[in-house]
Amino acid sequence: MNYINQYIDENKERFLEELFGLIRIPSISSLSENKADMLKAAEYWKNTLLKAGADKAEIMPTEGNPVVYGEKIIDKNLPTVLVYAHYDVMPVDPIELWHTPPFEPQIVDEKIIARGADDDKGQSFMHAKAFELMVKTNTLPCNVKFMIEGEEEVGSPNLPGFCEKHKEILKADIILVSDTGMIARDIPSITTGLRGLSYMEVEVTGPDRDLHSGIFGGAVANPANVLAKMIASLHDENNHITIPGFYDDVIEISLEERAEMAKAPFNLDNYKKALSIQSEWGEKGFSTTERTGIRPTLDINGIWSGYTGEGAKTVLPSIATAKISMRLVPDQENEKISELFKKHFESIAPDYVKVKVTALHGGQAYVSPMKMPAYIAAEKAYTETFGKKPVPTRSGGSIPVIAEFERILGVKSILMGFGLESDAIHSPNENYPLFNFYKGIETIPYFYKYFSELSK
Amino acid sequence: MNYINQYIDENKERFLEELFGLIRIPSISSLSENKADMLKAAEYWKNTLLKAGADKAEIMPTEGNPVVYGEKIIDKNLPTVLVYAHYDVMPVDPIELWHTPPFEPQIVDEKIIARGADDDKGQSFMHAKAFELMVKTNTLPCNVKFMIEGEEEVGSPNLPGFCEKHKEILKADIILVSDTGMIARDIPSITTGLRGLSYMEVEVTGPDRDLHSGIFGGAVANPANVLAKMIASLHDENNHITIPGFYDDVIEISLEERAEMAKAPFNLDNYKKALSIQSEWGEKGFSTTERTGIRPTLDINGIWSGYTGEGAKTVLPSIATAKISMRLVPDQENEKISELFKKHFESIAPDYVKVKVTALHGGQAYVSPMKMPAYIAAEKAYTETFGKKPVPTRSGGSIPVIAEFERILGVKSILMGFGLESDAIHSPNENYPLFNFYKGIETIPYFYKYFSELSK
Repeated sequence: MNYINQYIDENKERFLEELFGLIRIPSISSLSENKADMLKAAEYWKNTLLKAGADKAEIMPTEGNPVVYGEKIIDKNLPTVLVYAHYDVMPVDPIELWHTPPFEPQIVDEKIIARGADDDKGQSFMHAKAFELMVKTNTLPCNVKFMIEGEEEVGSPNLPGFCEKHKEILKADIILVSDTGMIARDIPSITTGLRGLSYMEVEVTGPDRDLHSGIFGGAVANPANVLAKMIASLHDENNHITIPGFYDDVIEISLEERAEMAKAPFNLDNYKKALSIQSEWGEKGFSTTERTGIRPTLDINGIWSGYTGEGAKTVLPSIATAKISMRLVPDQENEKISELFKKHFESIAPDYVKVKVTALHGGQAYVSPMKMPAYIAAEKAYTETFGKKPVPTRSGGSIPVIAEFERILGVKSILMGFGLESDAIHSPNENYPLFNFYKGIETIPYFYKYFSELSK
Repeated sequence: MNYINQYIDENKERFLEELFGLIRIPSISSLSENKADMLKAAEYWKNTLLKAGADKAEIMPTEGNPVVYGEKIIDKNLPTVLVYAHYDVMPVDPIELWHTPPFEPQIVDEKIIARGADDDKGQSFMHAKAFELMVKTNTLPCNVKFMIEGEEEVGSPNLPGFCEKHKEILKADIILVSDTGMIARDIPSITTGLRGLSYMEVEVTGPDRDLHSGIFGGAVANPANVLAKMIASLHDENNHITIPGFYDDVIEISLEERAEMAKAPFNLDNYKKALSIQSEWGEKGFSTTERTGIRPTLDINGIWSGYTGEGAKTVLPSIATAKISMRLVPDQENEKISELFKKHFESIAPDYVKVKVTALHGGQAYVSPMKMPAYIAAEKAYTETFGKKPVPTRSGGSIPVIAEFERILGVKSILMGFGLESDAIHSPNENYPLFNFYKGIETIPYFYKYFSELSK
């Protein structure tokens, strides 16, 4: 057993306990009632970094939740890895579908079950512990910086400003991120592309108050019916999105590239079985992998109107609201898409309703080149610990701030994600297998090693 | 001043205090948490009837909330009026739009503000007080029975059974109901038609759990998008309902009758202004009054799916649900329509979702003949107290049990409603003008007088 496996083996219980301490803080960034928890989580991270061996760690304010910054500079001439992660998590609704309380982590079937178990407390904590391992075993081969934010799940509204302001201290050769997934427990992969995001909220108002559906029904437009009709019109019969100009900037992938992508292991029957769906859905002319990897999409993330309680209430609602988000691909500009959406949605509103469209957040798509040293270093690291070369994949998900890092700091990111599709991130019963957690801690030091060697 | 006005004048404060006592009981029939309040409201009614002069009054069980039955039989050879009303009320959501607590009645601008102020506590209490007035002034000209139920707002599921079981004690010559509206404060009207109702709940399920919209969006059908599309398809471009067979049994009204109806006072500009809408909506080829009076309709009463909290959550929901109700006209059978809806909705479900359709409740439409003695008596009563003949109108609303009364008991109903459109029944800030409350108490004794005379 080498020093990496030995250190993990001797400390594995403590690693887990420390992670559980972080998970127990319900740092839900989208809810104002959890404001105090954000600071608690930030302090937990600061202490974690100091104890792991950082020269310094501090909680730096932003206009929103603070950023935890830490560093260990061993030699200014050596390369620098900047670890990016987030300490905030998603809300837990629908809470009734959780089998265990979301902020009381437990181990069930060799998996950590909790909100944040994977996204991103479990994955980020691997970096804290891999860093500690390298410090304690005197094997840290380069400088390390940490930037742990608290607003990723609400679109990182203040991180670009933070980066602008602190360009100097954030100088690095690569940004290292574990906030994505891998194909399967035995199929490591590296995410080379991320979709961008435009997240909108639309509000359709009919009459100025809820009405009795018997007295007014049929003579006054029902905003819920109208919203349904407007939403329905956003996809055509081929499931193409109907917003004018929406596809203008989409980079079309060549047939050769698509053939290459199609070689990645994927089984549609297993996919459908895992989701309990009878058939898949999507844009005509593209495969399931292509639909989430290289094509933009539009989804209702939430909709509500009228009476949603028990039993029957014969109300004609005044207002109907929906949260609608679009996943974007290179070279779609998220701000341009939000603007196109707004213009289109307003234009299709009939005159018997009023429509309000708000952009909630967004981010650019990102592509990570496979020829950069960091990619090669990551590839070697996975090969070392998994015994096989990782597969390059394009993820359907978005980490909007990744594209911003490149724009502001001029630094590329490498996405070494250890999550699995079955981790149910953003969903009830989020989980993270212990295997992946420890495998991450094992793999990360190899990345540092090879990256330092390749950057010499 | 005659004895009626004198009695009202001497007791008006007490009438109001007693009504407030009833309103303060939050007897919401659709919420199981308010179960205990239902019995409280029933007891309040029992005591009210006994104090007003009933020979007997009792709380009679059903499989749901009990019925309060009371009677005063002065002479078996005289005609009998059966007063029907309900002590249950609608839920108060959205609570945040109320300007005052819904179960703390207050007088603002000469109106009672509270849930149930009009529907049906305010309107039903007029009958208790008019009855008291006739007893105390020794002017009751006939027998009176009261049947006050606690499940009208959930479709009276147990009242038909109650009527079947107690046919004998419910024998009457006319059923008198105040649970509808009049055209305006100075334009009395009698409702001669009521729409029927089919109230459905539909549930569309995609994947078996909420998914990350980035990772799965575009490749897995989103049940909220699908539900929107299905709902949108329920109306065609002329706002006709597309369910096959839906219009088969609708009685088409002759052009002469429509011309007669069009004479009722109605101002579309005022209607739109009162609702803050820029334009009206509805089935092509019909006027606003016809759309709510003689045509069937379909409305979303509630819809919900996914994340409906603050901020953004990138979820692809597992389930989308809607409450959808249809208002029916003679001779549409509500059970047949519910079945047609279910069949159609299931048939249009694509195979990438599962659909569950449940009928929540329903009722038949009703027509009240203008030639019956009770109509003529009511017409004379209004003429006496308002100084003008009431206008016959067809209401868009439904009191499903009215049609059942005729079927089971063989007794017609007369709908002497004193509510106004501005009373916001079923909505936040429900209200009932004091004018209408006292005018009702004043008009009802005249109805008893003329009905007794005409029935001799």
